[in-house]
Amino acid sequence: MSEQEQQNQQQIADVTDKMEQVILDAEGKPLSKKALKKLEKEREKEQKKQERLAREAAERAAREAAEVDYATDNYGNAKLNMSQQQTNTKWTEIKELSAAMADQTVHIQARVQTSRPTGNKMCFLVLREGTATAQGLLVVNEDTISKQMVKFANSIPSESIVSITAIVVIPAEPIKSCTVGDIELHITKLFVISKVVTGLPFSIEDASYSKLDYEKDPTLNKVLLDTRLDNRVIDLRTIANNAIFKIQAAVGQLFREYLTEQKFTEIHTPKLISTASEGGSNVFQVTYFKRQAYLAQSPQLYKQACIAADFGRVYEIAPVFRAENANTYRHLTEYVGLDLECAFREHYHEIMYMIGDMFVYIFKNLEERWAHELEIVRKQYPSEPIKFDEKPLRLEFKDAIALLRKHGVEIGDLDDLSTPQERELGKLVKKEYGTDFYMLDKFPLGIRPFYTMPDPENPEYSNSYDFFLRGEEIMSGAQRIHDPVLLTERIKALEIDPSSLTDYIKGFEYGCPPHAGGGVGLERVVMFYLGIGNIRHTSLFPRDPKRVDP
Amino acid sequence: MSEQEQQNQQQIADVTDKMEQVILDAEGKPLSKKALKKLEKEREKEQKKQERLAREAAERAAREAAEVDYATDNYGNAKLNMSQQQTNTKWTEIKELSAAMADQTVHIQARVQTSRPTGNKMCFLVLREGTATAQGLLVVNEDTISKQMVKFANSIPSESIVSITAIVVIPAEPIKSCTVGDIELHITKLFVISKVVTGLPFSIEDASYSKLDYEKDPTLNKVLLDTRLDNRVIDLRTIANNAIFKIQAAVGQLFREYLTEQKFTEIHTPKLISTASEGGSNVFQVTYFKRQAYLAQSPQLYKQACIAADFGRVYEIAPVFRAENANTYRHLTEYVGLDLECAFREHYHEIMYMIGDMFVYIFKNLEERWAHELEIVRKQYPSEPIKFDEKPLRLEFKDAIALLRKHGVEIGDLDDLSTPQERELGKLVKKEYGTDFYMLDKFPLGIRPFYTMPDPENPEYSNSYDFFLRGEEIMSGAQRIHDPVLLTERIKALEIDPSSLTDYIKGFEYGCPPHAGGGVGLERVVMFYLGIGNIRHTSLFPRDPKRVDP
Repeated sequence: MSEQEQQNQQQIADVTDKMEQVILDAEGKPLSKKALKKLEKEREKEQKKQERLAREAAERAAREAAEVDYATDNYGNAKLNMSQQQTNTKWTEIKELSAAMADQTVHIQARVQTSRPTGNKMCFLVLREGTATAQGLLVVNEDTISKQMVKFANSIPSESIVSITAIVVIPAEPIKSCTVGDIELHITKLFVISKVVTGLPFSIEDASYSKLDYEKDPTLNKVLLDTRLDNRVIDLRTIANNAIFKIQAAVGQLFREYLTEQKFTEIHTPKLISTASEGGSNVFQVTYFKRQAYLAQSPQLYKQACIAADFGRVYEIAPVFRAENANTYRHLTEYVGLDLECAFREHYHEIMYMIGDMFVYIFKNLEERWAHELEIVRKQYPSEPIKFDEKPLRLEFKDAIALLRKHGVEIGDLDDLSTPQERELGKLVKKEYGTDFYMLDKFPLGIRPFYTMPDPENPEYSNSYDFFLRGEEIMSGAQRIHDPVLLTERIKALEIDPSSLTDYIKGFEYGCPPHAGGGVGLERVVMFYLGIGNIRHTSLFPRDPKRVDP
Repeated sequence: MSEQEQQNQQQIADVTDKMEQVILDAEGKPLSKKALKKLEKEREKEQKKQERLAREAAERAAREAAEVDYATDNYGNAKLNMSQQQTNTKWTEIKELSAAMADQTVHIQARVQTSRPTGNKMCFLVLREGTATAQGLLVVNEDTISKQMVKFANSIPSESIVSITAIVVIPAEPIKSCTVGDIELHITKLFVISKVVTGLPFSIEDASYSKLDYEKDPTLNKVLLDTRLDNRVIDLRTIANNAIFKIQAAVGQLFREYLTEQKFTEIHTPKLISTASEGGSNVFQVTYFKRQAYLAQSPQLYKQACIAADFGRVYEIAPVFRAENANTYRHLTEYVGLDLECAFREHYHEIMYMIGDMFVYIFKNLEERWAHELEIVRKQYPSEPIKFDEKPLRLEFKDAIALLRKHGVEIGDLDDLSTPQERELGKLVKKEYGTDFYMLDKFPLGIRPFYTMPDPENPEYSNSYDFFLRGEEIMSGAQRIHDPVLLTERIKALEIDPSSLTDYIKGFEYGCPPHAGGGVGLERVVMFYLGIGNIRHTSLFPRDPKRVDP
């Protein structure tokens, strides 16, 4: 049904409604015969009018059909790209566009985020590519853009991909709704290269509102987290999500940049392991041919083996699997571990401070080199940039306990910090020292893994540390026990079956230098750095006890 | 028992043996009384001599014990390092040592690969750190190095780790057996910081011989591959293995360097997946809480999802799991996948040639920036550097078939190449084009996965390619089908259950740009690049159907 036909039908329906209202009158009683007759006449008149309008519309359609479309070469659905040809076209990305390119003709491939008609002679398109959007415009003219072409532009389903040729024009007013707002694209050619053929579960606009947008206008559509994750391919297209994963990649890149400079070697340790070591619980079981195997819950034992094998300084970026039935905002069953392990000469503080410097390197470079992406993310997820010192603050565990107690928190000397206590501590540290990032050193031995080196001065404590960002733990590490006798003693003291750790202990019997290290959860660092409230937003396809799809 | 006591006892035993021989004579008959008496006297004389020697030895030992050891501060077993202290010592690595440092005092921590006494006043140590070895020397002097200290040095078990202070000295002759041969370390302090307390399954020397060494001396000990892998922590300490894994890390680094320059984003896709997609066989099953899940056998579907989600250009370095019961020199059940996927504007050759350039970048930089490590590896595993062109050779599949047939290989037009045929082709290409590296383009459609884009000119072929190095496949890739209708058609044609691919197909219904990509096995690239005959040598802790340990 054409738009015109729809309008006509609606008008008839409106009149009929009106008549029925009149017939029943305000009290719901039938009207007089005279009044009825008058109404009947009015109805006939309206009917004739509608018939005339329909006739006129049909005539117009016929005229339009007969009208020669002088723009057929300039638009349409492109043939499926099977690599039929290679031209020498120079393609431009939307984020490269600027006022300096005024009057240039450019070739672009991008999504149509929305199309908005203005009358039947004009059409606005919001074009999107990665984290950039720009406004496209088609206006009927006498030789290259026909009414049919504008109609075609209007009919393109949202999220379809188009290939356009356009002239870069400086608009009278900057276009605030687009990230590249100082130019406008006057489209001269428009081909759909991938058409959306099914209804979108939600629109990219709806998925892109910030808290502030909802405060200003509470009637805006909301897209629930589960709906987003069920349709992650669509959800990931928002410019904020595109930027989040550029920042996630940046954290990995900066982690490697720093460690490569420090002469670390990247390693790849096995994820399929024969025994459920490292404590034993929380491991996924795998059917491995005719036996059982397990998924590594950290590269801990293997990265230490690399130290015993003289690799000196190693790091790994790889998936880590935790069969923990924890449904919280900060737990995943599969996440990306940034792990490092490092032989040292004298003191584990050599490594702890190096890790501190590494984070400072990451934070500084993110703000400088990924400023564009951070700006995009903060538009949808507003947060203050983190505060940190060039030389990060080191706090001892016992001083942290004292600080908490001073502010009324009840906690034992050797108790582990709960998540709320960690957050409280974060607030107190921020207040006292003005930093969102600090290192907590010398944890009680009792709350750390069996392979943690005790403190030589006070055996109730240990040579171990956590790093905190905005009051949440982002890295845990320690000096490890490199002596097989002390290690066996600790394993026995903690009532772990030493038989599952035979190979591990043997590695130290063959000689091993003192070493320390730590592990970071990539998604956690990104989440806390960006101040985003749920780890599922910083995992590409998150996995939790209830979700293993898509 | 002291060495002196041992010598004495041996001499007594020797004389007794001699006498018994004499008593029985050559014919085995007893001697005359006179002869016996003479012998008895000789025996008594010898006995007295031995008693005297023993007395003298005891006296010497007593003297030695009474002798003040003036070097006690300069050697010994160091206390377990629990990070008791931090000094400002400047530590030097063995590979940094050079003749330019002559007469300097240096501090080093390293393995004692071997210790060799020369008399009781001198001891040579081979010190090893990563890929570097140097000779250490202790000579008794009158004030800092005592006999006891030299004795201690001789007693250090191989592979223990020591902390030394030494003076850099230029030896009369270069030390050929060490990688740093133009200097010698005259040790002044020697402390064991990690002592080997258990017998080594094999020595590092035995694990370090090359084929050439065995040809020269077939009596040299051999260490079997399984023995190496069962004791990988020791095996990895050979300088060749240390270098192999530096090269493995380098390949990853160069892969990322190139792709980062090309604006790729690193992604991390899930390894736990809900359905055994991509064909279905060869996947490991995982118990996932109360249901079953599977280990991803490639990031294929997820990296394509990232393209449909507008990431444009993505790569991933992550473990790949294959439950294939293949026990060959080139299969692993877990390996490191270097995967990439890339939207393109016009033709998949944009991507194929880019991948070709990427490999050239990797090969060139390896030879330049990792020359030291390559030299070390090639000493144990001799191989010629690969030959390749700046712009890699592209060969069409049908031309490869023609080339093989021309040389007597029987093969059908659309048959897949067997491994021997691939190797034969490699030889022919090397002969004809002088390159060890080339791209084979336009494979038959029938032997490629369902998501491969058909060739627009000839539907029996496809827009797909493999990359070959020294006649072995190192990368497989293609243009993918981005159209949901054609994709569904292909899935049905190949009789795959489309229900397992619902989410995947849906990604394309929401619009997706044309794209191409490929996947590399990291261990394979390193193996073929270095010309090493078994993939287990280039995997840190290899996994195959029979091995999931250590």
